[in-house]
Amino acid sequence: MTTKIILLAHGSSDQNWTDTFVELAKPATQKDQNTTLAFMELSTPSLECKVKEAKEEGYDRVVVLPLFLAKGRHLRKDVPAMLKDYEEKYAIETQLLAPIGEHPILAAALTDIITDTTSDI
Amino acid sequence: MTTKIILLAHGSSDQNWTDTFVELAKPATQKDQNTTLAFMELSTPSLECKVKEAKEEGYDRVVVLPLFLAKGRHLRKDVPAMLKDYEEKYAIETQLLAPIGEHPILAAALTDIITDTTSDI
Repeated sequence: MTTKIILLAHGSSDQNWTDTFVELAKPATQKDQNTTLAFMELSTPSLECKVKEAKEEGYDRVVVLPLFLAKGRHLRKDVPAMLKDYEEKYAIETQLLAPIGEHPILAAALTDIITDTTSDI
Repeated sequence: MTTKIILLAHGSSDQNWTDTFVELAKPATQKDQNTTLAFMELSTPSLECKVKEAKEEGYDRVVVLPLFLAKGRHLRKDVPAMLKDYEEKYAIETQLLAPIGEHPILAAALTDIITDTTSDI
């Protein structure tokens, strides 16, 4: 089974917001061509566009890793509903992972960020 | 100058949301007693409570590191206004850092999270 990994950010009408996620995702998307970035709403490319594209590229499944720090209504209800819709619409399997904020690697990275940003203040 | 570091999360009426940030901050707050967690709204402890506490504990300054992935209206307008208010109210210096999502360490951690969460799928 071939899997496309979609990093899913919220999106915003503010281009600076969008740009931050493009930068955040860049090391991952540059490292692995099976990994791409999409936005839930307001910014492009949309999640639907990226699921459709994955299907067209021959992937059997998309795994969605939310670039969110915690689960709110979007990750509990909206995104699962969107994925269910796209599964049927594009005949592709989908899987939604926990948001990155729940991962211990992020908590460890936070201690490094604190050290780095507060060492000279 | 003695500095308290406040990790600032958004807050929510959903306890699971709040708990996620408590867990995310735990390695940092346990490592350094000068580091603490506060919420902008809806969850406790509030940012104001933690700024007031820092003053009472004898700190001269609070440095606020936003547990946000990108800068939206809250970080561009609301939080700076809150900090300006608390600076005057509690006679303490404040400094607002960039959100953690803008830091290269977070982008690097994201590649590790992808490897870890997708290695068995």
